[in-house]
Amino acid sequence: MEKVDHIGIAVKDLQESMDYYIHTLGLKLLGTEEVPEQHVTVAFLDAGNIKLELLEPIGTEGAVSKFISKRGEGVHHIAFGVSDIRQRMADLRENGVTLLQEEPKRGAGGADVAFLHPKSSFGVLVELCAKRTRGDE
Amino acid sequence: MEKVDHIGIAVKDLQESMDYYIHTLGLKLLGTEEVPEQHVTVAFLDAGNIKLELLEPIGTEGAVSKFISKRGEGVHHIAFGVSDIRQRMADLRENGVTLLQEEPKRGAGGADVAFLHPKSSFGVLVELCAKRTRGDE
Repeated sequence: MEKVDHIGIAVKDLQESMDYYIHTLGLKLLGTEEVPEQHVTVAFLDAGNIKLELLEPIGTEGAVSKFISKRGEGVHHIAFGVSDIRQRMADLRENGVTLLQEEPKRGAGGADVAFLHPKSSFGVLVELCAKRTRGDE
Repeated sequence: MEKVDHIGIAVKDLQESMDYYIHTLGLKLLGTEEVPEQHVTVAFLDAGNIKLELLEPIGTEGAVSKFISKRGEGVHHIAFGVSDIRQRMADLRENGVTLLQEEPKRGAGGADVAFLHPKSSFGVLVELCAKRTRGDE
């Protein structure tokens, strides 16, 4: 794991929570984006050394909607930036870690992402996140 | 808020979870410490740009023990590093944020810490964390 890329936070109302993080806590908005693959609209905020990713569910099908129904709003995942996501997934599997998918999926910002099962990480949903560079496919 | 200092993670078994973060995820241990004021033993891990703080409850009285009883293991708080914690607390109160204490308390590493009520931060327990420098009192 190179470093923490962002902390994902499940929210019911993106605009209301953005207002709080920007105007009350003083963070800067980096951008917003719909990620239909993950059933969320996200806002990235600059927290200095890392980003906060606010996640508002689209519909009731996605993991974030289910998370909020079960546990309420709050921290949803910690995302570590990695360079070779497939290699990292293979290494983790070899170490007995359960992953939530076989192959990386498309996440916000066009990144490749994969999630470790929270049971493997003592209750924390850990995301691996690999930025795509031009020419990747 | 200057930047994220650490992510606090509530765990039942410090040794077992440290083993996972160090040997499986490849993070480096920075140190462990008992913080009787907060009823926890903590381990700090170097996650590159920020720290992870694993928190194992001491006894059943503290906030972390209660968190685990209610919600299970997982992310407990996000800590922002600040320079003047009393000023920041006053500013937040003026902005309508509810704080969990009137005065800063002593946290791990001898830092001054204060918590924002999760209801103010849309389900996230936010900590303000000010490192003490020699001569402070």
